[in-house]
Amino acid sequence: MDWPAEEFRFHHLGIAVPSIDTALPIYRNLFGYELDSGPFSDPIQRVTVCFLKRPADPVVLELIAPDKDDSPIRLVLRRGGGAYHTCYEVRDLARAMEHCVAIGCLVVNEPAPALAFNNRRIAWLNTPSRQLLELVEAASDDR
Amino acid sequence: MDWPAEEFRFHHLGIAVPSIDTALPIYRNLFGYELDSGPFSDPIQRVTVCFLKRPADPVVLELIAPDKDDSPIRLVLRRGGGAYHTCYEVRDLARAMEHCVAIGCLVVNEPAPALAFNNRRIAWLNTPSRQLLELVEAASDDR
Repeated sequence: MDWPAEEFRFHHLGIAVPSIDTALPIYRNLFGYELDSGPFSDPIQRVTVCFLKRPADPVVLELIAPDKDDSPIRLVLRRGGGAYHTCYEVRDLARAMEHCVAIGCLVVNEPAPALAFNNRRIAWLNTPSRQLLELVEAASDDR
Repeated sequence: MDWPAEEFRFHHLGIAVPSIDTALPIYRNLFGYELDSGPFSDPIQRVTVCFLKRPADPVVLELIAPDKDDSPIRLVLRRGGGAYHTCYEVRDLARAMEHCVAIGCLVVNEPAPALAFNNRRIAWLNTPSRQLLELVEAASDDR
């Protein structure tokens, strides 16, 4: 492995929900999660997303809900919904993608700016063991 | 909410894979995860599981692969596989389940001992927003 593993910083777990409005109070009342940012409506991904955090828990959750009838997240919801993608933050998106592809990942979506990340670029891949993977480039002052 | 949210400690993210043997090197080479415990073959759940960790990353991953042809995880794999359940550790499993049910969760599996947790009991629920949820009771010296 010629790419240092610590370059992949676990960023969030993505969870498909039918509606942000109905899911938010469930996560708040069940586990004490609070809205950290969003909801953001993303015209490229055709989804609405928000990020949840709670005290003393390092795992950030992203809730993703369909925006439109043809929103790609509907496929995930038809398969049952819930947790479905993991996201890692990287300083060098191009090199990280090269590393992933060398290990057998397939590129699902090439890098594109994402509203929920202040237009930082994200890319989507599938691992050989069938994990949908999001990579987000670090903010420029953190690269 | 009459149940303190901090009672739910994020324990791991469960990821369905076709085979532990082929998935392990992928997670090692992609991200630097190392085997923390297992693989355990669980006759009740009819799956083989193992836990992965990596330095400076608080998120533990559980890989789950089918043991038998009728292993229930095959349904998750047929739907695409990958991340599918979240697990929280609780000190009082009965009270935690009562709290979840009061908020609208459905019990999928009543508490049963799990080999991968040294026979600590686990239970499975579905949240109203369709997240498959595992609860594991804390070790007796941690309750």
